[in-house]
Amino acid sequence: MTAGRPDIGIAVIGSGSMARAHAYGYAAAPLMWALPARPRLVVLCGRDAAGTQRTARVLGFGDHTTDWRRAVERADVDIVDICTPPGVHAEVVRAAAAAGKAVICEKPLTASLADAVAAVDAVTSAGVLNAIGFNYRRLPAIALMRQMIAEGKVGTPQLWRSTWLSDEFSDAAAPFDWRFDREMGASTIADLGSHLIDLAEWMIGPITEVCAQSQTFTPYRREAEGDGLTRVSVDESSSALLQFAGSARGTFEVSKTCVRHPCDFAVEVNGTEGTLLFEYARLNELRYGAAAEPRSLYGMRIIRAEDPVHPYAAHWWPIGQGIGYGASFVNTAAELLAAWPDGPWEPDLRTGLRVQQVCAAIESSAADRRWSRVPSS
Amino acid sequence: MTAGRPDIGIAVIGSGSMARAHAYGYAAAPLMWALPARPRLVVLCGRDAAGTQRTARVLGFGDHTTDWRRAVERADVDIVDICTPPGVHAEVVRAAAAAGKAVICEKPLTASLADAVAAVDAVTSAGVLNAIGFNYRRLPAIALMRQMIAEGKVGTPQLWRSTWLSDEFSDAAAPFDWRFDREMGASTIADLGSHLIDLAEWMIGPITEVCAQSQTFTPYRREAEGDGLTRVSVDESSSALLQFAGSARGTFEVSKTCVRHPCDFAVEVNGTEGTLLFEYARLNELRYGAAAEPRSLYGMRIIRAEDPVHPYAAHWWPIGQGIGYGASFVNTAAELLAAWPDGPWEPDLRTGLRVQQVCAAIESSAADRRWSRVPSS
Amino acid sequence: MTAGRPDIGIAVIGSGSMARAHAYGYAAAPLMWALPARPRLVVLCGRDAAGTQRTARVLGFGDHTTDWRRAVERADVDIVDICTPPGVHAEVVRAAAAAGKAVICEKPLTASLADAVAAVDAVTSAGVLNAIGFNYRRLPAIALMRQMIAEGKVGTPQLWRSTWLSDEFSDAAAPFDWRFDREMGASTIADLGSHLIDLAEWMIGPITEVCAQSQTFTPYRREAEGDGLTRVSVDESSSALLQFAGSARGTFEVSKTCVRHPCDFAVEVNGTEGTLLFEYARLNELRYGAAAEPRSLYGMRIIRAEDPVHPYAAHWWPIGQGIGYGASFVNTAAELLAAWPDGPWEPDLRTGLRVQQVCAAIESSAADRRWSRVPSS
Amino acid sequence: MTAGRPDIGIAVIGSGSMARAHAYGYAAAPLMWALPARPRLVVLCGRDAAGTQRTARVLGFGDHTTDWRRAVERADVDIVDICTPPGVHAEVVRAAAAAGKAVICEKPLTASLADAVAAVDAVTSAGVLNAIGFNYRRLPAIALMRQMIAEGKVGTPQLWRSTWLSDEFSDAAAPFDWRFDREMGASTIADLGSHLIDLAEWMIGPITEVCAQSQTFTPYRREAEGDGLTRVSVDESSSALLQFAGSARGTFEVSKTCVRHPCDFAVEVNGTEGTLLFEYARLNELRYGAAAEPRSLYGMRIIRAEDPVHPYAAHWWPIGQGIGYGASFVNTAAELLAAWPDGPWEPDLRTGLRVQQVCAAIESSAADRRWSRVPSS
Repeated sequence: MTAGRPDIGIAVIGSGSMARAHAYGYAAAPLMWALPARPRLVVLCGRDAAGTQRTARVLGFGDHTTDWRRAVERADVDIVDICTPPGVHAEVVRAAAAAGKAVICEKPLTASLADAVAAVDAVTSAGVLNAIGFNYRRLPAIALMRQMIAEGKVGTPQLWRSTWLSDEFSDAAAPFDWRFDREMGASTIADLGSHLIDLAEWMIGPITEVCAQSQTFTPYRREAEGDGLTRVSVDESSSALLQFAGSARGTFEVSKTCVRHPCDFAVEVNGTEGTLLFEYARLNELRYGAAAEPRSLYGMRIIRAEDPVHPYAAHWWPIGQGIGYGASFVNTAAELLAAWPDGPWEPDLRTGLRVQQVCAAIESSAADRRWSRVPSS
Repeated sequence: MTAGRPDIGIAVIGSGSMARAHAYGYAAAPLMWALPARPRLVVLCGRDAAGTQRTARVLGFGDHTTDWRRAVERADVDIVDICTPPGVHAEVVRAAAAAGKAVICEKPLTASLADAVAAVDAVTSAGVLNAIGFNYRRLPAIALMRQMIAEGKVGTPQLWRSTWLSDEFSDAAAPFDWRFDREMGASTIADLGSHLIDLAEWMIGPITEVCAQSQTFTPYRREAEGDGLTRVSVDESSSALLQFAGSARGTFEVSKTCVRHPCDFAVEVNGTEGTLLFEYARLNELRYGAAAEPRSLYGMRIIRAEDPVHPYAAHWWPIGQGIGYGASFVNTAAELLAAWPDGPWEPDLRTGLRVQQVCAAIESSAADRRWSRVPSS
Repeated sequence: MTAGRPDIGIAVIGSGSMARAHAYGYAAAPLMWALPARPRLVVLCGRDAAGTQRTARVLGFGDHTTDWRRAVERADVDIVDICTPPGVHAEVVRAAAAAGKAVICEKPLTASLADAVAAVDAVTSAGVLNAIGFNYRRLPAIALMRQMIAEGKVGTPQLWRSTWLSDEFSDAAAPFDWRFDREMGASTIADLGSHLIDLAEWMIGPITEVCAQSQTFTPYRREAEGDGLTRVSVDESSSALLQFAGSARGTFEVSKTCVRHPCDFAVEVNGTEGTLLFEYARLNELRYGAAAEPRSLYGMRIIRAEDPVHPYAAHWWPIGQGIGYGASFVNTAAELLAAWPDGPWEPDLRTGLRVQQVCAAIESSAADRRWSRVPSS
Repeated sequence: MTAGRPDIGIAVIGSGSMARAHAYGYAAAPLMWALPARPRLVVLCGRDAAGTQRTARVLGFGDHTTDWRRAVERADVDIVDICTPPGVHAEVVRAAAAAGKAVICEKPLTASLADAVAAVDAVTSAGVLNAIGFNYRRLPAIALMRQMIAEGKVGTPQLWRSTWLSDEFSDAAAPFDWRFDREMGASTIADLGSHLIDLAEWMIGPITEVCAQSQTFTPYRREAEGDGLTRVSVDESSSALLQFAGSARGTFEVSKTCVRHPCDFAVEVNGTEGTLLFEYARLNELRYGAAAEPRSLYGMRIIRAEDPVHPYAAHWWPIGQGIGYGASFVNTAAELLAAWPDGPWEPDLRTGLRVQQVCAAIESSAADRRWSRVPSS
């Protein structure tokens, strides 16, 4: 450790692409913020010993293992950062909480509502800091959108529009893997949609009722080896109507079958006084139209959300240079570490549970073909 | 009449902005197409005598009246073109059919399903040519989109996305007029949404079930004169889930309360092999992404739908110059007049009725808060 | 003639695509404006008798001829509208002026500076109304741009940027025709660049010096018939530095060899207080950024130049519907006819001559490879 | 050091925003690449002791100093990375080379051509690895653009278009600092333009002649303290015509006085067979239009340059997530460290000198108001 600046030991459970994104966040955060403590990548845990070793080395972890329980219980670990498939999240959260570790968990919180409740109970009982990985909250333009809504820049929100279009499942010949398994991979509603639901409730307020439809266009996929077919148990594409507390209404769509949409998500709010629109393909920008402006200037403006007055932007590059996806993890790591060890951390697992309640209502609405009430959180 | 090229006498009923758009179409169509007959603007009918006279003169009508029945029955009128508020359509259609005139009727066909059935019955019994005003079908980029779907350029359609965002009703202080009256103005579902439903069924196929929500954020509006308040009986914003015959699903949203969206409509299809996206704010373009293209070129292309090989484009300007809204009326007038007097004309009132059945199902679904089945047409 | 509203007889000389655009303007202008007089298409003149007859019939001309002198001298012709290749303009202007007719002449005014001077002298001596076809001035967004500059919305203009990229000559195998002949087709500098120079001087002020380069990448083209090759005598692509009176500077580029640019022109001004940017591919929009606005809103706004408060827009469609290329001709016809018979008309042939002086300076600068001074007009 | 993976000691000279960007590159590169060696941030050198200490600590340097000569000569330093104002570059390069250190130098290489020659001589004589900071070469979309040109995807390049618009100097009230001093800050031609010239020669080939104009709209600026005025000795805005070896032509513009352009750079090539266009505001995209494609698909495609088949992209995030400015430094650090210690490194200081020769020719052309020949490199 650097004198006067304690290290914070981090175990990352899971060694895939999210682990790399989180490691990136820990590596870069200290350069962009004057943090009181420095993250130390203690141990990486994966299933395949050799691959985990290689990844651990590249990402700069001091150690590696295939035994996540051992990683979680190490004395030099302060934070357990969970990047496994969703079906495994709850068990790791519970173990980490039991070991008195702070928890950072990727979204969706779990693959079942019961697991999500158990995870929240575990961290609450243990009294450990905990955070859920809704990283897009920490993109400057998204954070600015929320701030402007809170400041009344659109008046009273009336309509919300949210879509996430990808082509991850477009190839019907792609073999079955855990992402197509409801128990392990949760659902497209939860995988992509949890971000959209989190943003909706964070910006607009509680969703009270939903009505949805889901479709799986490729119901069976070949197994990775052999000639067998396995049933796909997740939705590929889902859409929903949303009713918020009050009179605001919304729409929601997630899909992994939209050819040549790599990862195009968009959220928009229309209020009594203005419109705000964010499109991820232009992630450094925010569109804004205000009813009060003169007709001679009718239209929307493109705010380039990189000015030092904008959220997070002062920690980054000169205006116009642009940040990318990675910055959301850097900003997340920085804000969580900056609040170490007293907290609070947000959004936390409770938020993750709340979002999952909405996702569960969407899923059951699609199954039952009727409106579903979302329990108040 | 010009030698060898007969005039076709046209009465336009209604003297507002749609009348002007139709007159524009009749004026310009003969210049862009080598038509077998020339339209002659015989008579314009409006409510206000002085205003109708002025408008008739500017638009080039030979005569004007406030008595629509007399206009419809004139011997020198071949086509009755109906541009009144929707609540009046059916009665004019019936009178025109009874007089043996061809009918061109603006959308939505009527304000009630019963009226729509009556209108279709009237033209069917009379055996007169008839057309409904789904003008956007005749924008080059929209027509190209439909053609490419029909040619299999997106494979099997799986998802459909359609939105129409405007701010026509955003000002809560705007006084009550017929547009806020369900009996006269139909609904936002019908006014904006009929275009979207028509395009959906034209491009993808029959819609079988819908589930919807509607909202009227400003339930009362002041009367144009005096201190009174009148209840607004139309929806201001509605959204719906759509199920098509087969497995395709869709979304639908129409709104007149989206600040700084003047008239932004967009339709998108995602099929097994490709994506097509049209946005009205860039009406000369069509976005297209094909799964079969090499990964090195991953993304969508912007087709500039103005090449002579594209629908309608050979009748217009050199590529890159651009057409606007007016061209949809010119193209409509040209194709209808080109088919004079034998037809067929399309889309016809039967299509208008079919679209209205879907709109009615959306409306009742929103009222009942459940999925509604659309009758097969 | 309609009672109280005299007809204005028009002869159009030239029967190609510009003739069609002008006829479109005359046909539609009376519908969009309450004009004091109605244009009547008296005679169309072309080289090929049969083709001219067909075109005249479609466009609605009362008569047709291959003898332009006869057309010009007809008693029932009030305005001679010249849509021939540039190399023929001057002779027709002189004859029309001699016959006491008003003149509307497409750009560029002529193919040589001497001819341009002669044309201006002719209309001046004859005292006839005259106009040059800088139609883009009458696009709403372009007119708004000029208005905002004049109102000081960008402060003092400092930089000007103008490009016109097309691929009209990209196919090196396309055969020689008059467009490749300097004597008949003028130059790319004059054909495309005259618009850019006109806008530059209209918006910013006089250009005093230029420095340019030109290139003809395909120096010989095959003849339309036979095996021969003909030397191309026009520039295909040219660019220039511009110095305005005062300290403002600019750039200029025109090209007909830019693959997949159909007709993409753009003009931008940067002043002490703001930026305005117009791109023809989005012709209903104008981008505007103002230095005085708060940093929290940093960026440009997209003005949708279709509000009734914007130039020309009140004569067109509801905001958001969009106009196209044709509207520039409608607006031109309307404003010229509205000023009939007293004038003034603008821009006139003198403006055409002025622009041609700048184009000539650009051409000679490219030939001499040095800065050229532009005579003050 | 990690076993089997040696550390490479790095001294960064200069403690401003470029130092931070470089440190970011060193911190993140090892996570994204499996590098043979790990960079170690040994020492940061700045002018202000307290500020440098703070920055060194945040950025993770082991030590800090205000004496750059001592930093350069440390035994544990392998690479001297120069992030000072341009006027200081040459002296540091010479000292580093003399100490046998590898050199990474920000652009522009120096503020004078003589200094640039001296810097290249120093590293050449010393035989040390050396690199110049043309970081944008290592953006995926830029690298893809160059690759596609090299593969013949546009045919023979004919036209090149390059602009860099910023508003860094737009505020005429901003006080004088070293950026306005030609001796220390070089010029806008060199600061922004060196990137454009580097890309032009890298993609198209040698520039042989240039003709330019420059303007300084605010010739005097107030001193940071007191009432004095200091003359601004740099250009604020410059533009140039470019002639390449062969027949290709180009344009060039750099400006720091374009209101509401934060850092908008764009480069485009038009070849006999296609067009490629890159705009920094959409840095993950590349536009491409090919003449050989069918007219029915006429237009440009938007390549999302994030597929694993694209340059650098396999080291980053899933397609559609997007990278930002920082990635250019990560990619640079990774490729230089991957080639440690044998090299080669590119682009090197010789490239920096070459670019500076073109910039010098542009500068002298603007001063002399005539075409300037660029020496062949």
